[in-house]
Amino acid sequence: MQRLSRFGFAPSSSRRVTDLKDALWSGSLTFQHALSTLSADENTSGRKFASYTVFKGKAALSMHPVLPSFSKLESGGSRVSRNGSVMLTFFPAVGQRKYDYSKKQIFALSPTEVGSLISLGPAESCEFFHDPSMKSSHEGQVKKSLSVTPLGNDSGYFLNITVLNNLQKTTERLSLPITKAEFAVMRTTLSFALPHILGWDQVLTNHHPSPPAASKPRAERPHPDSEWER
Amino acid sequence: MQRLSRFGFAPSSSRRVTDLKDALWSGSLTFQHALSTLSADENTSGRKFASYTVFKGKAALSMHPVLPSFSKLESGGSRVSRNGSVMLTFFPAVGQRKYDYSKKQIFALSPTEVGSLISLGPAESCEFFHDPSMKSSHEGQVKKSLSVTPLGNDSGYFLNITVLNNLQKTTERLSLPITKAEFAVMRTTLSFALPHILGWDQVLTNHHPSPPAASKPRAERPHPDSEWER
Amino acid sequence: MQRLSRFGFAPSSSRRVTDLKDALWSGSLTFQHALSTLSADENTSGRKFASYTVFKGKAALSMHPVLPSFSKLESGGSRVSRNGSVMLTFFPAVGQRKYDYSKKQIFALSPTEVGSLISLGPAESCEFFHDPSMKSSHEGQVKKSLSVTPLGNDSGYFLNITVLNNLQKTTERLSLPITKAEFAVMRTTLSFALPHILGWDQVLTNHHPSPPAASKPRAERPHPDSEWER
Amino acid sequence: MQRLSRFGFAPSSSRRVTDLKDALWSGSLTFQHALSTLSADENTSGRKFASYTVFKGKAALSMHPVLPSFSKLESGGSRVSRNGSVMLTFFPAVGQRKYDYSKKQIFALSPTEVGSLISLGPAESCEFFHDPSMKSSHEGQVKKSLSVTPLGNDSGYFLNITVLNNLQKTTERLSLPITKAEFAVMRTTLSFALPHILGWDQVLTNHHPSPPAASKPRAERPHPDSEWER
Repeated sequence: MQRLSRFGFAPSSSRRVTDLKDALWSGSLTFQHALSTLSADENTSGRKFASYTVFKGKAALSMHPVLPSFSKLESGGSRVSRNGSVMLTFFPAVGQRKYDYSKKQIFALSPTEVGSLISLGPAESCEFFHDPSMKSSHEGQVKKSLSVTPLGNDSGYFLNITVLNNLQKTTERLSLPITKAEFAVMRTTLSFALPHILGWDQVLTNHHPSPPAASKPRAERPHPDSEWER
Repeated sequence: MQRLSRFGFAPSSSRRVTDLKDALWSGSLTFQHALSTLSADENTSGRKFASYTVFKGKAALSMHPVLPSFSKLESGGSRVSRNGSVMLTFFPAVGQRKYDYSKKQIFALSPTEVGSLISLGPAESCEFFHDPSMKSSHEGQVKKSLSVTPLGNDSGYFLNITVLNNLQKTTERLSLPITKAEFAVMRTTLSFALPHILGWDQVLTNHHPSPPAASKPRAERPHPDSEWER
Repeated sequence: MQRLSRFGFAPSSSRRVTDLKDALWSGSLTFQHALSTLSADENTSGRKFASYTVFKGKAALSMHPVLPSFSKLESGGSRVSRNGSVMLTFFPAVGQRKYDYSKKQIFALSPTEVGSLISLGPAESCEFFHDPSMKSSHEGQVKKSLSVTPLGNDSGYFLNITVLNNLQKTTERLSLPITKAEFAVMRTTLSFALPHILGWDQVLTNHHPSPPAASKPRAERPHPDSEWER
Repeated sequence: MQRLSRFGFAPSSSRRVTDLKDALWSGSLTFQHALSTLSADENTSGRKFASYTVFKGKAALSMHPVLPSFSKLESGGSRVSRNGSVMLTFFPAVGQRKYDYSKKQIFALSPTEVGSLISLGPAESCEFFHDPSMKSSHEGQVKKSLSVTPLGNDSGYFLNITVLNNLQKTTERLSLPITKAEFAVMRTTLSFALPHILGWDQVLTNHHPSPPAASKPRAERPHPDSEWER
């Protein structure tokens, strides 16, 4: 609990609750809260964390990027073994300007879902469905959906996450409006993140040293657009 | 004063005044002026400074990015403790092609305000309100507003900053037109800056070394889109 | 074969076939398959690999960036001697959710072809023609074409690659629909890749150390927009 | 001359002439030519060079980015003392698929001129005027203008550079059409280059080490959007 209080959180009853006034003051209190929780769960040594968070009347939404994983190849190189994502975290308001991060619902946007959001027209909607336990013995127990629908007049979107738990017979729903300006931040940061969660930046900045000044005749070099399989 | 004269500034009467002809010649004299002032105020060792400045008949506008702050976590990682911003600095013309940087007014754009500007349609307006002393004992003494209104015919925007000081009973107002080309520079550099002022670039390029070539069966790895709380 | 089975590939009859279920599970199995093949062919030590792959009913499409080559200049600097590209790899479905990577057809997009794709309007088409053996003794033997045509209603594009081999008297054709969301991923990653395949990022981040604090009068410095040939 | 022949250039009569067939083959021959010339003129040790070049019937156009200059501040930091630019180099065709680089005309796009080009609508025009000897004793001797006019039907632009030399009583004019795809490459690379030629990337990636884990109460930290002059 000492760790939390250092960030100014006031645990209330059995839940840790964030005060919006403090949150707005610090600029990223909610994320700090999340990290406080996170740091107990996994080794974050050397890692950096950043998010973009918006607070609304009934819920807040935070998003942060997740890096892809690379695996070593026998050749000594490495390849993306798992794409990264952009994690959306929704958490409810539990009073005026108070949020309960422990009741959060998360939704990891795949690269193509990111593509869907960044190309969404002002009057268009989209909806994504996830099963967080897909391919495990728990497959089908939980169904998540995220819907994005226009607020009208090009003024932003309404985001809604629904989590249906067949085992616990519960349905959780969190939603909030996102202004056009906030969606512009999301669109710009999602566009920035996209090549990174696919690992393209690591390929494209993985520069090899230049070869020594060529002395061989130019004609021996392969054609620039060489496409032929060897 | 020696420091200033090295940059070609001619202090006139009690104010330091920038000559536009010199400013255009050097390409960034005004910013140098700002930095000359700045370097006396804080430790800038190792830091780099860059801006984008436009000079108009009644005022000039300079903008530069401000990095986010990271704080160490107990886990060894670090998190954004304060978002960065893009600082707008307005300063008045005090004669033909002469500007008085000491009369500057500043306005720090938050990430969402940046989102508002970069998504502004050619016929749209926006206005932001800041209290620079928010949450301090001086709260409410000063009220700043920045308005951005279209010039018409998709030819750019008119920017106006108003600073109302209730204590000194003063109202300062600085405004200038921004051409479509200049706003395109602002939009592009603001879009570039946005992921950086949120710290996303530091998260996304904070690459961990690849793990050694996997020998465990693939099925033991977590699902790519793992969203389940553990 | 041991190398392949480590990645969970089940070679079937004389062809190596990828199971879509596994592919979706791993997120990038197909690319791993490609790399397994690749790593036998060339020295990939220290290199990183990343792609973006979509699986459809009759074929799959994977794309990955290829870096430019730099050559040393006698002056000690280096220059781009060959532009990079974005490689498109098409491979057919050979059963329900099974793909045969060995039957792949590749198409290397030049910078200008990348420009064509990223500026393609929702109702526009484009087509590119390549001769992979251009300027060699095999010129004209093989003709490749890639066509991109709208699906209609701004819902995406239909991609078709045709490879005509005059020597073997064969015509291979692979095609698949790309949704608007998938094309948004392609457009964003292609836009990201473009300055990199031209080598501009290496020029623009190739920062020289700052000169020592200037003591010479400013007027001796060259004009910022100096365009005059010396 | 040996240096040139290494790159496959065949000097013809008193001019060095580039053969388009070879140029297309190498992908960047013209730029190599330029660099060959350049390397004799200035110390390029450690520098990297990259361009984007299009060859048309009557002329060719190459563009490459020029980095900003930083100057050390007394504080130990550094500031942009001169903005970078994007250099356009036009050179004429002197026969079928032959270009004469020695007859080149150059035009350095300022940041705002870059902004003008990247925000140019499909039916819009723009024109820039430069005096390469501005502020020197040769001011007014040479007048350069670059005009960009639409080809019609959203199919691209026509670029024309005119160089009027009052001393030599000459007017040089070079022009060429740029397709929509080629302009998309220009727009994307110009947008990429813009924050770099202003030095913003160096500011935004100039990360300081994180401070040690904070033990002071949060309220002592300055407000995130601190705008007040101290």
